[in-house]
Amino acid sequence: MDMSIALLFGRILQEKRQERGLSQEQLAQICGLDRTYISLLERGLRQPTLNSLFNISKGLEISPCIFIKLLEEQYEIGN
Amino acid sequence: MDMSIALLFGRILQEKRQERGLSQEQLAQICGLDRTYISLLERGLRQPTLNSLFNISKGLEISPCIFIKLLEEQYEIGN
Repeated sequence: MDMSIALLFGRILQEKRQERGLSQEQLAQICGLDRTYISLLERGLRQPTLNSLFNISKGLEISPCIFIKLLEEQYEIGN
Repeated sequence: MDMSIALLFGRILQEKRQERGLSQEQLAQICGLDRTYISLLERGLRQPTLNSLFNISKGLEISPCIFIKLLEEQYEIGN
């Protein structure tokens, strides 16, 4: 279960980043985060803090609650 | 900024827990988390992982995205 939420989050993050045509590097710069951290998140190897979630959502111009809503929907489908 | 998201989350958590008439101990047991962790979260001294957010939301019978929505609204008011 731990892994799957992180993995689902990572997939949604990658999808939304690519939809906006941003590289990991570009998103990292916009959010003031490290590219490596974005990469770890996308691979489900880290879970975002609330601060990261809010920063990344802002960078992607998505509301944090929409992000969580997508995660919740995909998590429910898988469980 | 870091502290305020954690603090706001903590306040919402405490409010929702008390609305449901649960002690920290009881919520911790329902969620399979440690009471100390719930206490740290409520005081804004820890940020929840996505897993904790999902576990706690389930324990409080609130959708995780509603939780984040409340956080987002209160964060916007404060910033």
